[in-house]
Amino acid sequence: MCIGNAIVDVIAHADDAFLIEHGMTKGSMQLIDAPTATALYADMGAGLESSGGSASNTAAGIASFGGSVAFVGKVADDQLGEVFSHDIRAIGVQYSAPAAGADTLPTARCLILVTPDAERTLNTFLGISSLIGPSDVDLDLVRSAEVLYCEGYLWDTDDAKAAMRGAMEAAHAAGKKVAFTLSDSFCVDRHRGDFLELAEHHIDILFANESEICSLYETDDFDKAAAAVAGHCELACLTRSEKGSSIIAADGARHDVPAHPVEKVIDTTGAGDLFAAGFLYGFTSGRDVETCARLGGLAAAEVISHLGARPDQSLSELASAAGLV
Amino acid sequence: MCIGNAIVDVIAHADDAFLIEHGMTKGSMQLIDAPTATALYADMGAGLESSGGSASNTAAGIASFGGSVAFVGKVADDQLGEVFSHDIRAIGVQYSAPAAGADTLPTARCLILVTPDAERTLNTFLGISSLIGPSDVDLDLVRSAEVLYCEGYLWDTDDAKAAMRGAMEAAHAAGKKVAFTLSDSFCVDRHRGDFLELAEHHIDILFANESEICSLYETDDFDKAAAAVAGHCELACLTRSEKGSSIIAADGARHDVPAHPVEKVIDTTGAGDLFAAGFLYGFTSGRDVETCARLGGLAAAEVISHLGARPDQSLSELASAAGLV
Repeated sequence: MCIGNAIVDVIAHADDAFLIEHGMTKGSMQLIDAPTATALYADMGAGLESSGGSASNTAAGIASFGGSVAFVGKVADDQLGEVFSHDIRAIGVQYSAPAAGADTLPTARCLILVTPDAERTLNTFLGISSLIGPSDVDLDLVRSAEVLYCEGYLWDTDDAKAAMRGAMEAAHAAGKKVAFTLSDSFCVDRHRGDFLELAEHHIDILFANESEICSLYETDDFDKAAAAVAGHCELACLTRSEKGSSIIAADGARHDVPAHPVEKVIDTTGAGDLFAAGFLYGFTSGRDVETCARLGGLAAAEVISHLGARPDQSLSELASAAGLV
Repeated sequence: MCIGNAIVDVIAHADDAFLIEHGMTKGSMQLIDAPTATALYADMGAGLESSGGSASNTAAGIASFGGSVAFVGKVADDQLGEVFSHDIRAIGVQYSAPAAGADTLPTARCLILVTPDAERTLNTFLGISSLIGPSDVDLDLVRSAEVLYCEGYLWDTDDAKAAMRGAMEAAHAAGKKVAFTLSDSFCVDRHRGDFLELAEHHIDILFANESEICSLYETDDFDKAAAAVAGHCELACLTRSEKGSSIIAADGARHDVPAHPVEKVIDTTGAGDLFAAGFLYGFTSGRDVETCARLGGLAAAEVISHLGARPDQSLSELASAAGLV
């Protein structure tokens, strides 16, 4: 099961000058407040709205492979909340939106600018999504799942941290695995101490891209970062865009797996989320780590071939066609 | 300037069996009420939301060509209304959303099912959009525009009809042209008497596809329908999908213009709307009718090459590249 921010994406094309004018760091995620969201939206081009959120994209991907998966994340009782709830259920994820209660914050949205190089730059207004707390997480559901997957993006408020720590404890107490994504290098910067402690003591399967794992260990050298993480987690799944992925086992064994071929990269939003989906689907269905990484690569390749952060095609069918399942 | 329903589209893939199960006629538009919209949405797959509406797509297309254009249509003070207002302004259309007042209906949405043959089937919940009336139309703006363009889809309530009839009178009194689209063959069925009277006495430039013009004159023979409309309007612009378009002048002269080549048809939503955009952009910038029809074909070709009913690429740049402007 996956815990994360429940977000609707607003995707628009933009050029590099637009990012510079608005003080954005290309490829990163920044949190924005309501007035900034309003001002940025007014400046952006016409958008496409589609459901997003990191761990929820991963849940959607697992469901598209045919896996059984639940998602926990908070939406408001508004139109974007309805869109989010509909889409995640429509793809086959078990989702019971926690009641919004008397909160007046709207559903989270992420203003995504896709530059001509297909890179995405994220500006997230968290709204009600940030109000998740321990009472929103059904611990029986956590205990019943083979893997609990949490996103680093959610590591901001004390309530959200308590919700994730409580879920991790419940998962481990039930003999299940805990997976976690570092999410974003700025996110790692904000929470390095916590993330190191999580990696050393609480995470079984860690997901990170090159810049995130390098940020965690404060090095510019990927190989050093890969060596540093070995032994901390049972598996570290390190994604390297067109260079593929490196899976590091607890004993230090490293499996380098090539990227899945992509005809044309349109929008990299969701690449890491979908890699995690493919890997976890493979892991929970008993595949070897190389096959898991190939399933991750296949899912990432699908999602970067079109606008939007969730699969357009059935990942189950694509995996069959590729001879991976 | 364009008057029409202000709609946010929800686009999902579906197979033919889904349309049959839900009693839909492929390729048509049906109006649905709120409970039907809720039930259908629950059955549909995950969606992409993007701004739509027939005349508003046409306005967006004209703006994308670099034309000056305003749109009149009604949204609610809700999130989908914000999406609609943002997108139409972002593409360069002048849009002052009429105040929603004390109305409690939500912004209109159209549940669009795209089948594997790229045909679209529309299910529209009109919401507040249907509450447009004469007071929502700024007649000074109508008088200042070279062409007034109205959609047949809006021909449902007495208030909307009065709004369009008043605008047509104002346009003609100011020496301007009135354009109109028949919108949909079922729409023509509902309003044949009115549409015939409009074609004979109030419309200068008529837009229709093959089935709509055949429905208007109750014939199965396109050539007969084309002959029947000659003399009624200054120009009848008849679109025929991959067969291109036939432009019929008042004196009966017929210009058959081939379709613009399309690599792969993905989603036909917006094809007619964008044909009208290209044609009207050409017309208001003084091009001959064949060039106008080619501009229409170019815009239609762009919009059917991707999901969504509005241009993804600059039509102005495409028209330059094609040597049409």
